[in-house]
Order: sequence, then C-alpha cells, then structure tokens
Amino acid sequence: MVEAVKTHDGWYCLHDFRTINWAKWRILSSEKRSQLTNDFINFITSLENVSAENNGSHYFFDVTGHKADLGLMLLRPELSDLNNVENQFNKLEIADYFVRTHSYISVIELSTYSGDSSNPKVMKHIQNRLYPQLPKNKYVCFYPMNKKRDGDDNWFRLSMEERQKLMYDHGMIGRQYAGQIRQFITGSIGFDDHEWGVTLFSNDALQFKKIVYEMRFDEASSRYGDFPYFMVGVHLPKENIPTFLSL
Amino acid sequence: MVEAVKTHDGWYCLHDFRTINWAKWRILSSEKRSQLTNDFINFITSLENVSAENNGSHYFFDVTGHKADLGLMLLRPELSDLNNVENQFNKLEIADYFVRTHSYISVIELSTYSGDSSNPKVMKHIQNRLYPQLPKNKYVCFYPMNKKRDGDDNWFRLSMEERQKLMYDHGMIGRQYAGQIRQFITGSIGFDDHEWGVTLFSNDALQFKKIVYEMRFDEASSRYGDFPYFMVGVHLPKENIPTFLSL
Amino acid sequence: MVEAVKTHDGWYCLHDFRTINWAKWRILSSEKRSQLTNDFINFITSLENVSAENNGSHYFFDVTGHKADLGLMLLRPELSDLNNVENQFNKLEIADYFVRTHSYISVIELSTYSGDSSNPKVMKHIQNRLYPQLPKNKYVCFYPMNKKRDGDDNWFRLSMEERQKLMYDHGMIGRQYAGQIRQFITGSIGFDDHEWGVTLFSNDALQFKKIVYEMRFDEASSRYGDFPYFMVGVHLPKENIPTFLSL
Amino acid sequence: MVEAVKTHDGWYCLHDFRTINWAKWRILSSEKRSQLTNDFINFITSLENVSAENNGSHYFFDVTGHKADLGLMLLRPELSDLNNVENQFNKLEIADYFVRTHSYISVIELSTYSGDSSNPKVMKHIQNRLYPQLPKNKYVCFYPMNKKRDGDDNWFRLSMEERQKLMYDHGMIGRQYAGQIRQFITGSIGFDDHEWGVTLFSNDALQFKKIVYEMRFDEASSRYGDFPYFMVGVHLPKENIPTFLSL
Amino acid sequence: MVEAVKTHDGWYCLHDFRTINWAKWRILSSEKRSQLTNDFINFITSLENVSAENNGSHYFFDVTGHKADLGLMLLRPELSDLNNVENQFNKLEIADYFVRTHSYISVIELSTYSGDSSNPKVMKHIQNRLYPQLPKNKYVCFYPMNKKRDGDDNWFRLSMEERQKLMYDHGMIGRQYAGQIRQFITGSIGFDDHEWGVTLFSNDALQFKKIVYEMRFDEASSRYGDFPYFMVGVHLPKENIPTFLSL
Repeated sequence: MVEAVKTHDGWYCLHDFRTINWAKWRILSSEKRSQLTNDFINFITSLENVSAENNGSHYFFDVTGHKADLGLMLLRPELSDLNNVENQFNKLEIADYFVRTHSYISVIELSTYSGDSSNPKVMKHIQNRLYPQLPKNKYVCFYPMNKKRDGDDNWFRLSMEERQKLMYDHGMIGRQYAGQIRQFITGSIGFDDHEWGVTLFSNDALQFKKIVYEMRFDEASSRYGDFPYFMVGVHLPKENIPTFLSL
Repeated sequence: MVEAVKTHDGWYCLHDFRTINWAKWRILSSEKRSQLTNDFINFITSLENVSAENNGSHYFFDVTGHKADLGLMLLRPELSDLNNVENQFNKLEIADYFVRTHSYISVIELSTYSGDSSNPKVMKHIQNRLYPQLPKNKYVCFYPMNKKRDGDDNWFRLSMEERQKLMYDHGMIGRQYAGQIRQFITGSIGFDDHEWGVTLFSNDALQFKKIVYEMRFDEASSRYGDFPYFMVGVHLPKENIPTFLSL
Repeated sequence: MVEAVKTHDGWYCLHDFRTINWAKWRILSSEKRSQLTNDFINFITSLENVSAENNGSHYFFDVTGHKADLGLMLLRPELSDLNNVENQFNKLEIADYFVRTHSYISVIELSTYSGDSSNPKVMKHIQNRLYPQLPKNKYVCFYPMNKKRDGDDNWFRLSMEERQKLMYDHGMIGRQYAGQIRQFITGSIGFDDHEWGVTLFSNDALQFKKIVYEMRFDEASSRYGDFPYFMVGVHLPKENIPTFLSL
Repeated sequence: MVEAVKTHDGWYCLHDFRTINWAKWRILSSEKRSQLTNDFINFITSLENVSAENNGSHYFFDVTGHKADLGLMLLRPELSDLNNVENQFNKLEIADYFVRTHSYISVIELSTYSGDSSNPKVMKHIQNRLYPQLPKNKYVCFYPMNKKRDGDDNWFRLSMEERQKLMYDHGMIGRQYAGQIRQFITGSIGFDDHEWGVTLFSNDALQFKKIVYEMRFDEASSRYGDFPYFMVGVHLPKENIPTFLSL
Repeated sequence: MVEAVKTHDGWYCLHDFRTINWAKWRILSSEKRSQLTNDFINFITSLENVSAENNGSHYFFDVTGHKADLGLMLLRPELSDLNNVENQFNKLEIADYFVRTHSYISVIELSTYSGDSSNPKVMKHIQNRLYPQLPKNKYVCFYPMNKKRDGDDNWFRLSMEERQKLMYDHGMIGRQYAGQIRQFITGSIGFDDHEWGVTLFSNDALQFKKIVYEMRFDEASSRYGDFPYFMVGVHLPKENIPTFLSL
C-alpha cells in the first residue's frame, strides 16, 4: 500500500459565486436599492469583525466574465460556520437579486512533503499559514485541481519519494513568484467535486497566467495535473460596493 | 466468466436534495411561513414515527454550498416506499419553496468479500447493518462511486480473489476510523447513474477528508475508484428547523 | 469488413419523462384539477384502446427520484405514431403542469445472434416479441447502453463469432432471471444518443440490481458495456392517477 | 505533414431546433393563435419562394422526443444568409412561443476521395449536389460526427491513401441504401462543435437505424467515428401546420 | 524539467456572448425600444472612442445559431478594464433584454517559438500585434484550444525544440491564408477554462473551415490539439444596430 502524505489542516474555506439579476434590481426604487445595499455592507462589516478577532477571514471580489458577478472567499474554524455565513447571506433581502451559480468547499491544507513540523519555528510558520488573514491584492484567481489516475499516469500509485521529488520541483517554480503572488492551497477531497483548490492573489493579473503556464511544463502538472476550470476577479473593497451596485 | 460477489441487501435508500427559493419564501407573510413550517415539522415527525417503529430511518441536513440547501437521507423497506415519501413531501405546500436539485436511489448493501454469513452471530450483525437506525452525528458526507473499466484497470475483470484481497486492504484503512466515522454503503447498479453510494457520518468534518484522502492511495481506489462528486452537510435537528427557515 | 448482425425490428418505442410542477398545480381550484385529471385519464384510456386492438402498448409509471415524476413507455407501429401521441399529450391542458425532462426513441429489436429465424415456430415466437403487450409488473427499470469502441476494447471490430459467443454467455445470465424479470431490448442507433435501450419489468425491484450487477462481471458488459444512466419507477395504474394527483 | 483532402463546398446549412411552449400558447385566444399561425405560414412561404428560384432550400419537421418540437434545415448561399433567416424567424411574434433549444452550422461538402472533378460530367453532378433541393421524404435524421484522434486511433494521422481506402469501403455500404435513403454531408470544422453533420431522408425511418448500424462495423466508423447525438423527425408540410399548432 | 516558452503579452481580451429575449423586447413600446437602442449605440460609441485613442479595440457581431445572438470581442490594457466595460454594459437597461450566455477571458499573446525579439524591427512588429486594432471583416470565428496531455500525446512533455518544430510547420499552413484571414491568438491559462483562444477574421466564412480543416492534419493539431467548441458570427456595424433590433 502506498503511504499517504500527512497534512496539517486549518480553517475551512467556502468560495461562493453569485450573479446579479440586474433586470430585477433595476425595477426597485433607488431608496430600496440603497437600503438593501446598506444591509449588505453591514453583512460585510460583520465579516470584517470576525477577521479583526482573527476568527476567520474573507476576500470579496467582482468576478470577470459571465460565470458570476460576485465572489466571496470565506475562511472559518468549522464546516458548520460556512453554512451559517451562507445562510446569513441568503437571508439578506439583497440575496434575492444575487443568483447562486457556483461554490467550492475545502479546508486550508499544508502537506508535509517538505519541512520538519516538529521544529517549533516551522510549527509557528505552519500555524500562521493554517489560519491566515487573506491579502487585499487587486486580483484573485481560483481553480480546482485533481491529480490524474489514468493508466500509467497515476499520481496516487507513485511512492512517497517520487511525489516528494515532483512536489519539490513544482515548489521551486512557485518560489520564483514569491514576491508577486500569494498562494493558498485548500484540500477538498471528501468535501467537493475535485481534490484541491488553489487560490492566487496578485496586483498583476498577468502573473496568474505566467505561473500556471510555467508550471504546466513541470511533470507534477504536465503528467499528473487536471485543471477543470479557472475563475478570476477584481478585489471589491467595501467602500466600492455602493458604486458597484448603483445604476 | 468472472464470478460476481453475493450481496445482502437491506432497506432502500433515497438521498433527496432541494434548494430553498428564499426570494419566493420572503414574500409570504410570517404567519404563512409559520404555518408551512409547522406542516413541514409534522412531516418530519411522521418520519420519526416510522423510525420509532423501526420501519425505516432518516437523517435531515443543511447542505453546504450552492448544490442544495436541504438534504434528506431516507431508508425504507420497499422502493415504492421511497416514491410515497417523496410524493408526500412534494405535496406539502412548503415544497413549492424547495426546488428539487438532485437525488440518488440505492439500497443498503453488505458484500460477502469477508465474513461467514452462515455463522448466526455474523448473521445477527448483518441484520443490524441492513436495517439500521441512522446516527445523529453533526456532519454527513455523501458520494457516489464507480469501479473503473478502462483498459487494464478493469475491476470487473479481476478474479474474486483479487477483489477480495483489495477490499480487505481497503477495509483495514476504514477500521482505523471506526471510532470517528460511521459508514453506510448502498448499491445503486440498476437504480441510479453510478454503481455505489457511500454515506459517512462524523462529529468532525475533517475526518471525511482524512479517510477519503488516505483511501485514495489504496489500490482499490487509486487504480479502480471513480468518484464523480461529493456533497457535505450539517445535521438539522427538528427543533432547529423554525430558526433555519425564519427570516 | 466486419459483418453486422441482422436484426428483426418491431414496434417503435418512446420513453417519455415529465416532472410535475406542483406549485403551479396547487394554485388551481380543486374543480379545475379534477377536470384536467379526467382529461388525462381519458388520454390514458385512448392508449388502452390502442393496446386492446393490439396496435401498440404502453406502461405508465411514477418515476423514483428527482429526474422525473411521470414516465410513459409507448410502443407504436410507426415512428410518426410516437410524434402523434406525444403531440396529443402536449396538447392536453394538464401537460402545462408536466414539464418534459427526458425522452428516448428506439425500436423493439431482436438480433439473430441465436435462433434460426427460418424455423416457423421460432418465427412465431419472434413475432410475439416484436409486437408485445407490455406487462403490468409493479416496477420498471430503463437504461440506455453503448458498446465501447476504445482502443483494444472495441465491440464493433470483433468478428461475428466472437460477438455471438459473448452474447450467448450474456444471455445465459439473463435466463436465470426468467421468472423474475421481463426484458425488452430496443435499438436506438440512428434514432437517439445511445445504441440500445433496455427496459426491465419486475414485481421485485431488487432483481434489477441483481441482474445488472451480475452481468457487469460478464465480458460483454465488463469489457464492452457502457451504461450512461438508469431510471426506475413504480407502475401507476389508471385507477390510482386521481389519488396520485390529488393534493 | 499529412495531406488534407480537398473539398468542394456548396450552400451553407443551418439546422434550427425549437420547443413549443404550449402552456404560453394555450392562453392566447384562438384568433390570436390563428393570426400568428398565418404569419408563420407566410414565413414558410417566403422560404419556398427562395427555393423556387433555386437560391436555397429547406425542410421543416416535427422532431420526435423531448429535444425539440420543431426542426428547420435551411440551405443558403452565404453564412450571413443563415443569420438573416434566423433573425427573421426570431422577429415573428410566434417565435415567442418557440424556445430555441439547439442549432448546427455547417456547409454542404463533397470530398474528393473519389471522383475526377476535372471531368465535366462529374463536375455537373458535383454542382447538383452542392446546391441541392432537399427532398420531401416523410422522415429525417440528423447527427453530427467527429473522426477520433485518440492514441493509435487517429484519423488525421492516416495517409491520404489509407483514408481513401476506408472511405471507399464506407461508401460501398451507403450505396446499398441508395434507393431508400438520401444523404447530405455538411462540413462544420471551424463553424460548430463537431467536424461534420450528416442528414438522412427516407420514407421508412427504420432505414436510418439499418444504415447507421451496418456502418458502425465498418472501420471508418468502428475505429474512427464519434457520434455525439442523433435527432429524428417527421416532415411537417406547410398545409399541416395549422393542425399541428391547433389546440 | 521542460522549459516553458516565453510569451509577450498585450491587451486583455473578453469575448462576451448574449442572447436576445425577443419576447420580452417585443412587449415594449416602439418608443421605449428606440430609447434603449439609442443608449446602446452610445455605449458602442464610447467603445469606439477608446479605440480612437488606441486604448483598446473591439468587434461587435451577430452570432450564427442558437448559442447567442450578440457577440462582443473587447481588448483593454488591464483585466479590471474588462470588468468595468462588462459592468457598464450590464447596467444599460437594454442589457435586461440580452441574456448573458457565455464569455471567455484571455490576453493577447505572442510566443517566441520564432523571431528574435531583441531585434528592434521585430520588436516594433511585436508591439503592433500586442496592441492591435481589430479588423472590420464581415465574418468572425472564435474557438478555445487546449494542447493534449494524454498518455504519449503530451504537448507539455515535449522539448522546446520539438514544440518549435511543430509550431513552425503549423505556422507555414497559416501563412498560406495570410491574405484571406487575420488571426489573433490569446492566452487563457490561469484566466479561463481552456489554454488558448483563437479569433479569426475574414470576408469569406469558408476560409475558417479551410484553414482549421487543413491544420487538423498537421501534427500540432492532429496529435496535440483539443478544440472544445466553435462560434461564428457576422460583423454588426453600429449603423446596422437599429435595424437589427427593430421589430
């Protein structure tokens, strides 16, 4: 039997995507739209309060293209917390104008392919990465990922050493983008339809293409990676929401 | 011809998933919402009465993410009983606010890869597992599963002995999670689009990821398993339904 | 060039699946619902009259799960007859409350892998199977099927003898279920998205799982069979329709 | 580099599929329905006028099954002509009751696998086939087709001679159905999601199954053919439209 | 590790597809339709102003078939500019009648498989191609593309030299169409679901089929290319919009 890699797991993660029904929104009076917008801003403020107490984190963004208009990445200590925030969002009257189109459920994950987790300094670093405050970069890129199990190209039949070697090479590419991109890996085996989620943040959207393209030539991706879809968006700070929703 | 494994089959199983149309629900008066909520609670009570007489069992949950809001796992003696409960649910007025999004039809199954079913003690144990009362754990995970039939990776062309060996190893992993997870295997060949359904219950959602991840490295999964999608949720006890549905 | 098997073809076959829009149905007055139900019963009676004259046959059922609520399997002498009945159904006012979700078009087929069709007794038997009256068993199972053409697993490149051998073994399994299951094979190459349709009838739904599971280990299925989806249901006799549709 | 086959290309082709919203149609007054039906008949007449001047052709049909109710196969000299007719159709008020469900864009194509196109007699024949008047047979069958590019089964890596040989054998089967079926091949590479479209016409729907089934054993299909879906229908002559649309 | 090709990247690109809800549009008064049409023409004029200052470019077209009615290809300096134009479009009242059906996000890309980008003349040429004004040809063809990673057919495991050779041969075919077709390659790895987008412009739609068909026999496509779908359309100049939208 092939040995599985041990993982450290942190906060649970929900990516929540919604499309605005502008036609329905438009027929409201501007007073009603203002009122619902204010309620929504209060909801975002309540999320900020949780972040301030370091009980979670979030990033709210304007999704590019037709897949969605609004994206919320949410981190919380328990899976049930994701449901609670989701239900709180759904119960806002403005949610009647935001059609749910997609979501993704996962948990912040650090694998032990490298790093000695018994070292206290490493342990401290791991803790910070398991319970992070998400950055406020201008751009975000989210994509799920699977490792292939097709005939000879079967990640899960490789030995621990082989996987360790491939992930090390893979990580070396990632390091070159350290100043440009912040990356969060979340595990979704047992939670959602793919095996991992990757969320990248940058102030230069082109870096998303550069890193994913360069990595595609790396054996961990070229031979074993499966990438069903990609979603990108632009940070939507709370103060810009009224303008974003105004007609 | 390869010999099929004999199975013991118990109660029929329906996984029923619905999304709440909150916009439509919101425009009802709070009196009307209370009345429909009460009707729904009576429906849940009627399911409980069946469980009390051990003529079936059920587990009602709040689904995480956009795939659904409400999940009902239902066990009954006959396939037609599933239709009857489903129709009873559909005829509730509150069902007009719950949009059916997915379902899965199967039957509780125990294979005879291991265990001597002629032994009366084993037989007693088998009976308990074929007609179980579902637990009330905080979290649930449901996923369908197929065994691959791709070129050399063809489960159904393996000999009984090979399959027995692989399932034994697979089961050994499962046993490590015995205190953490309760697992129900249901067969759906001939009933629904995939071959088996797996339903896991735990008070710690992370255990779902751990067991499915660890098993993925096991040959029965790494080489032969196909896992189309996963759904997770949080137990929704009857007494929490009014709060869950209140605005 | 590989020789195709000659087939005998009988009545055309439509599987028609519809979901009830209960919310829309509910807002009708009970008088209106009664009237539309009566119209629908008259439509079913008209189908029965065709069966009585042996100009076709049908089976009406309550589909299990979310894929549909109502299923109609219909046999008629010409493809255009299927369109005519379908249009007649669509023009019923009650059809406004039954949303079409799926259908499947095929023709009753007997292949000559076995049996000497020049023998008059065999010919008589063939005639009965090409123009059958469908049974009234409690349960029905419908699934489409393809034969794989993937690399070395290519059914259509096997010689006639190889296919004959595989189908003979396959048929031997089927015979064990002769008293439990009635099976109808319909060909849909050139008519619908898959190559064949299989419809099984039984008074014990578990037999569907048993036969399909056992056959999956047989080479004709394990190596060559592709099974996109399964639908099951419970017979809905005309006299039960008012209760089924009542609120 | 493998040499591509030269093709002769004729009229552009649109297959347009729509489903009737009978519920919405039913609530119109019968006067309104008559008026809209008359407008639609005038639209069909305008198409007939184009055919009469040999500037195009069309075939209108009642689609079997749930995929659509109405099908229009349209031939025109330019791609923009397809858009124009489509827009003309959409602007008819009756189009509000016909929901667009599918379409396919291609161009009549004759390959030069066989036939000396420099021969004037051959050339004359080719011209007739590139700009045809569609027949008025009772039945129609439409399906798109791809040639596989999977590992060793890669049509586009075969030499011209190999493809020529395979297409010759394939054509020999087709010739046996010459009196029963009329076949139109349209190329859709660069226009729509598959590589070719095939449209068959016959007065006996069973011939569609017979030819496609027999051809499936031929190497050009068994090894290289990919057939995503099939649609069949019954000719709907202009004079039958009022009855077809009446309630 | 296989070396990735360096790319030059220019303007970001959005392909935006919408279907007209003619039924909803029809019930407006003709005055209202005129007013909304004028607003839309002003929106198009605002896009033209950006093009005039060479801060971007666009091409607006009438999509053939049911996939969409309207297509907009948009080029802008930043990813966030795409969101801004998209939101501006969505906030137009006429957008309530244009249902968003598809989109594609990418960035103009030139690879360095050929050409010495340190040469100033080459550099000038590259600049012109990275920030182009789109042509006004009558026809457009858009399709996404992936390079396969299936067993032995894995583009991303080829050496730089092998890929260079294949792309050179591929480019040679393209050059034969230089006078007939203008081609824009956009990279979408990290931005959308496929790896590249290809947009072709021509005054003769048949050229789209000819070039894509001929290239399909070239190893870069036959062995390594994956082409999920194609969309074609006809240029819709601003002055034709009122006629296009009139009833």
